[in-house]
Amino acid sequence: MSLLDRIREINRHDPDAFTPFVVDGRRLGAVRNDRVDPLLSATDAIVRCGDGGLAFAADTAGGGPQTAAARNDAIAGAAAHLSEAGLIARLRGELYPAARRFGETPAFVVDRAAVPFLGLRAWGVHLNGYVRRNGALHMWIGRRAKDKPTYPGRLDNMVAGGQPVGLGLMENLVKECAEEADIPEALARRARPVGAITYVQQAPEGLKPDVQFCFDLELPPGFVPRNTDGEIESFALWPIERVAETVSETREFKDNCNLVIVDFLIRHGLLPPDDPDYVALVRGLHP
Amino acid sequence: MSLLDRIREINRHDPDAFTPFVVDGRRLGAVRNDRVDPLLSATDAIVRCGDGGLAFAADTAGGGPQTAAARNDAIAGAAAHLSEAGLIARLRGELYPAARRFGETPAFVVDRAAVPFLGLRAWGVHLNGYVRRNGALHMWIGRRAKDKPTYPGRLDNMVAGGQPVGLGLMENLVKECAEEADIPEALARRARPVGAITYVQQAPEGLKPDVQFCFDLELPPGFVPRNTDGEIESFALWPIERVAETVSETREFKDNCNLVIVDFLIRHGLLPPDDPDYVALVRGLHP
Repeated sequence: MSLLDRIREINRHDPDAFTPFVVDGRRLGAVRNDRVDPLLSATDAIVRCGDGGLAFAADTAGGGPQTAAARNDAIAGAAAHLSEAGLIARLRGELYPAARRFGETPAFVVDRAAVPFLGLRAWGVHLNGYVRRNGALHMWIGRRAKDKPTYPGRLDNMVAGGQPVGLGLMENLVKECAEEADIPEALARRARPVGAITYVQQAPEGLKPDVQFCFDLELPPGFVPRNTDGEIESFALWPIERVAETVSETREFKDNCNLVIVDFLIRHGLLPPDDPDYVALVRGLHP
Repeated sequence: MSLLDRIREINRHDPDAFTPFVVDGRRLGAVRNDRVDPLLSATDAIVRCGDGGLAFAADTAGGGPQTAAARNDAIAGAAAHLSEAGLIARLRGELYPAARRFGETPAFVVDRAAVPFLGLRAWGVHLNGYVRRNGALHMWIGRRAKDKPTYPGRLDNMVAGGQPVGLGLMENLVKECAEEADIPEALARRARPVGAITYVQQAPEGLKPDVQFCFDLELPPGFVPRNTDGEIESFALWPIERVAETVSETREFKDNCNLVIVDFLIRHGLLPPDDPDYVALVRGLHP
């Protein structure tokens, strides 16, 4: 096993298993082929086009552009039906933007739980919380609660969260820092944006062509995180070598956290550039 | 103009203008279409294959694999002819590996001057030399000598150099640090590998599908670089904001240095992740 295996695993997906969802003339999402009929049964607002792709019915009717509000209502109705039918998880009451690029005006907004079903891009924030002890780097690692609906019991970055509409990235990070690790706002605001990782993951929920913004925060040696929202069972401070080995040799970390950590290892000079995989790792973090 | 413009400019190339050079069953390089005939005139060792690509004549003759030494001789002969004909620059006497991946056994070695003519990948090292003054980041910038054959008078990273065969990356960086900026070895060895940038550049010399390994070195505030090999005319210490603005608003920097600096700005938290170009910048550094 190797660090590169983690990158390959998360990006393993079958493009032919998904039907494009085309909005405003471009592919915005993709629905797993075997879930297209249930989607079309759940709403009249989405139809199959001549080329086999999916589109808003109103867009194909030639009646001029739909309002975002009408799309939001149509998608909310479909999501509610699909959730009742058990095809998407319990709705979260948190709205995500349907967009290709971060910050652009969304084509519509949709409950977070429906995002992978529709194969929409999601954005999130991940924090590398680290400590220097006698010159040696250590990283705070979280263990996800056993009752989390996704990745229960797996290892996680110190703080991470999805990015809802209407919140800045730093504001979201500060909020998650408080909820997940009891990091005071003044300390959380010292976090430094250091890049982003991207991947296209075929998950049980659907397709996830996601972007995670990465932040580094060097914590005072005396700081001890404490979870306040029940999502993290426990925290541990690991020497960075143990973190690297766990990423390389196991699948204990939640899939996308592996990439955030590989990015950290590269930026902090902890991987030798002569490693035959080095350039593939750098490039593999943002395919 | 924008940072993203610099990334787009260096990657602007026309794949149809180049003829693949296929070695050991894979595309190793590419020669500009209008230079194929001069290449075939300069050597009998390279021929056009049935599919229009270029290959070693001995490989197409079915006589079994050629030795690397035979390939090296054939390529050296061709390079000498092409240099005499003025189609490639003066030979440098420095051998580069013909390979796709850093560190793999090269298919052959070739004079550095012939690498872009053959469209082979080259590797190099670039150093971000920076200083903290009252908490503000400053970066050492070089001005290339006016008699440099490539990019005369343009701005450059503090230290940079191509990667010849038979030298480790750190050893090459230490050597270049001494030659280009008079950085003592003990100080140079504190440089931290922080990633790599990649691009495919259509240059006057040919195609450059290159990889530059990036290093950060925080210098003592009192250190002043001094060029010893005549390649850099002068050094200046600039506030990082001026560096960023020069990259964004001008083409003063040597093309690939712009990417090394964008990578530095991202890793050091100097670009806000909400910037609409942020993810495109991160991904654009390693296409």
